[in-house]
Amino acid sequence: MSDIKIKPRLPKGMRDYLPQEMLKREYVFGVVRDVFHLFGFEPLQTPVLELNEILMGKYGEDAEKLIYQAQHPGGKEELALRYDLTVPLARVVGQYQNEINLPFKRYQLSPVWRAERPQRGRYREFYQCDADIVGIGEMSADAEIIGVVVTALKKLGFPQFNVKINNRKLLTAIGQYSGVSDAQLGDLYRSVDKFDKIGADGVRKELVERGIDTDVVARMMDLIIAHEPGLGNLDVLEQAMGSIPAAEEGIRELRELAAYLEDSLISPEDYSVDFTMVRGLGYYTGPIFETVIEEPNLGSISGGGRYDDLIGLFRKESLPTTGTSLGIERIIDLMDLFELYPAHISGTVIQAFVTVFDESTRRESTKLAAELRGQGINVEMQLEDRKLGKQFQHADRRGIPLVAVLGPEEVTQGIVKLKRLSDGEEVTVPRAEAAAKISDLLS
Amino acid sequence: MSDIKIKPRLPKGMRDYLPQEMLKREYVFGVVRDVFHLFGFEPLQTPVLELNEILMGKYGEDAEKLIYQAQHPGGKEELALRYDLTVPLARVVGQYQNEINLPFKRYQLSPVWRAERPQRGRYREFYQCDADIVGIGEMSADAEIIGVVVTALKKLGFPQFNVKINNRKLLTAIGQYSGVSDAQLGDLYRSVDKFDKIGADGVRKELVERGIDTDVVARMMDLIIAHEPGLGNLDVLEQAMGSIPAAEEGIRELRELAAYLEDSLISPEDYSVDFTMVRGLGYYTGPIFETVIEEPNLGSISGGGRYDDLIGLFRKESLPTTGTSLGIERIIDLMDLFELYPAHISGTVIQAFVTVFDESTRRESTKLAAELRGQGINVEMQLEDRKLGKQFQHADRRGIPLVAVLGPEEVTQGIVKLKRLSDGEEVTVPRAEAAAKISDLLS
Repeated sequence: MSDIKIKPRLPKGMRDYLPQEMLKREYVFGVVRDVFHLFGFEPLQTPVLELNEILMGKYGEDAEKLIYQAQHPGGKEELALRYDLTVPLARVVGQYQNEINLPFKRYQLSPVWRAERPQRGRYREFYQCDADIVGIGEMSADAEIIGVVVTALKKLGFPQFNVKINNRKLLTAIGQYSGVSDAQLGDLYRSVDKFDKIGADGVRKELVERGIDTDVVARMMDLIIAHEPGLGNLDVLEQAMGSIPAAEEGIRELRELAAYLEDSLISPEDYSVDFTMVRGLGYYTGPIFETVIEEPNLGSISGGGRYDDLIGLFRKESLPTTGTSLGIERIIDLMDLFELYPAHISGTVIQAFVTVFDESTRRESTKLAAELRGQGINVEMQLEDRKLGKQFQHADRRGIPLVAVLGPEEVTQGIVKLKRLSDGEEVTVPRAEAAAKISDLLS
Repeated sequence: MSDIKIKPRLPKGMRDYLPQEMLKREYVFGVVRDVFHLFGFEPLQTPVLELNEILMGKYGEDAEKLIYQAQHPGGKEELALRYDLTVPLARVVGQYQNEINLPFKRYQLSPVWRAERPQRGRYREFYQCDADIVGIGEMSADAEIIGVVVTALKKLGFPQFNVKINNRKLLTAIGQYSGVSDAQLGDLYRSVDKFDKIGADGVRKELVERGIDTDVVARMMDLIIAHEPGLGNLDVLEQAMGSIPAAEEGIRELRELAAYLEDSLISPEDYSVDFTMVRGLGYYTGPIFETVIEEPNLGSISGGGRYDDLIGLFRKESLPTTGTSLGIERIIDLMDLFELYPAHISGTVIQAFVTVFDESTRRESTKLAAELRGQGINVEMQLEDRKLGKQFQHADRRGIPLVAVLGPEEVTQGIVKLKRLSDGEEVTVPRAEAAAKISDLLS
């Protein structure tokens, strides 16, 4: 081939996952998938490229600047790389009305692309992990969404987290009750959304700067930061503004949701009602959820809520829908921080390294490798001519836990020497028993 | 949200995978992954988008027309969606020289994009499934590549297949020996590549039309179609042209390969030497492989070979490399044709459907679902108000094998009624034993 050398490099903000990293990612993906299955969610996959017309106009102007456009020479379709998994879900529900049984409970674990400014922990290709329930307006569905998040985080071993619950109806009602004009509701959400970053005083200051009366701001903030334990916040709100229809409806929904959570055996310690949690401006219409790690303050690791109108963009009548997105890239990072990976996710899938003593024994070593694989042991075998010491070094450097040696004497006697590298434990067994012994030594 | 309706549709040649299809795909992916692990291959993942300069110039002009270009507003990089997984592998090996231990045995199971004319069974987004060994020039590596293919196809249950083996060195030598000019070697490969489609006479005719002497064509075809069983073809070739260095080397390589296959316990019935198998014109430098299903004639389901020069494009010195690509989309289609999916891949992951007798028992049904999930049973639970008969209908239509009923009486007595839908088998068990009983009924 040509002698021209090309500098091997990646596009900005993109990553390769080398095997060690991949094994960790796949462990997390596997646990999450199992939990989705426990709750009856099933896998869906949509293509990476969507028609432009499907994506555009759904995310807001700023977001649209981050969408990658695509085309091929001579292609007439305007294509784009998906920006999230929610709009594709809505398209699917509109497109396959006759094939999909409601409720449609699907999950999707797939990459999305956003041309954001790359920085530590923020990439331009990253995985999203969504679970949604389409076709149920009852709070039983929202409770399952919260249940799946709590169960997944517990199975992954997260020692502490808090699902914050709010309701878009309440935010609207609080604004109206306090005297915020409809035109300023957007400003209100945007400022309250920063509560975690700039605190109550910061939000107050910003709202006043946006031209909202000091009185109005004070009244609103009083309601928003009523931090009672458990559902206590709802009582405070009901007393103050229970007669406003949006407030009444929002409070009733959250009380029903809490009852379902209790019946679903979700501990009240794992969630709280928090009126400062806003979840952007998007398509939410009812309860919203966000899971945070508070001690240490590591921010949000899942978010979601009810969006009953979105699917109506792609079919005659909309369908009530609620769902969540696990912050799977965040979760993968935190697994390392909290050291939550089990011991067997040790950097390699290989269980045993079959050495080659010298060229005279290569045939027998090759056979041994085949025998072990036939019995379900993941084997790397020495493929080229190399000194035995180097072979041990290689196995050790790769983190392979066990080495099998088959010298001329072992071949004659029909035995194998097995050495566990972690502690040097060495045993000699008949070849026929080698696979079982390896499983023993690794358990 | 807006009232404008958008017609939900897909880009040309792209697919959604609804859950039933996804479960089948994931079964195949899972079996293949397990086999890769048995052979010590580990997962790698590269991003969907590569820099244009990495992909271009590697596939030939016709192929390049099929590559999707991508960019985002304001982006300066020229990007493209990956066309295969081999060039990204070569880039990775060049880029992470200090992090990768040789031999580097990786697999990648990922989508690629080619804007080909869509037709039955050919899509513009499809999965490739590659396993490669970088850093080993010995035939032991090629034997592992063939071993992994044979093992994967057997584990998937394919009743019959044949790995055709050839060597690019032999093809060159046969051409030279027969008197084909170097300039015409390309034409030779292209015509022989059609052997399966147009037969020996078709190839002869085409070669003569391309201006190769009838004598030369006859001599060459005699060698190419020497169909001896097993390695017999190699003996024929050696007698005729063993003194040509390229022939001598190619024959030696294939004999070594066959010896390794024997030691690897690969049955000689599963492979054959076939000089008519060419595998395009790409980057192959040594042994090449292609797996076909011959009865019925269903064409190729894997292909690969040795390409010792490609990685040199991205680093100072190349590294010997051999690998294979399983035709995973083809294989998934054929699994249906041969009915190879095991019974438990039945269209749903859900094991039990928890009904709600009436609203008075909803709390207890919700708890039962949580209890069963806590014990590892995949449960779908009735989320909205609906008549019991409809609930059974829904479970049946979804293919859920088992339904749990909890009426007021069962609640009082602390029992659950379980009904297996396939045969109507019905049992009543204490709630605490429900999970174990469900496992029983489903085994």
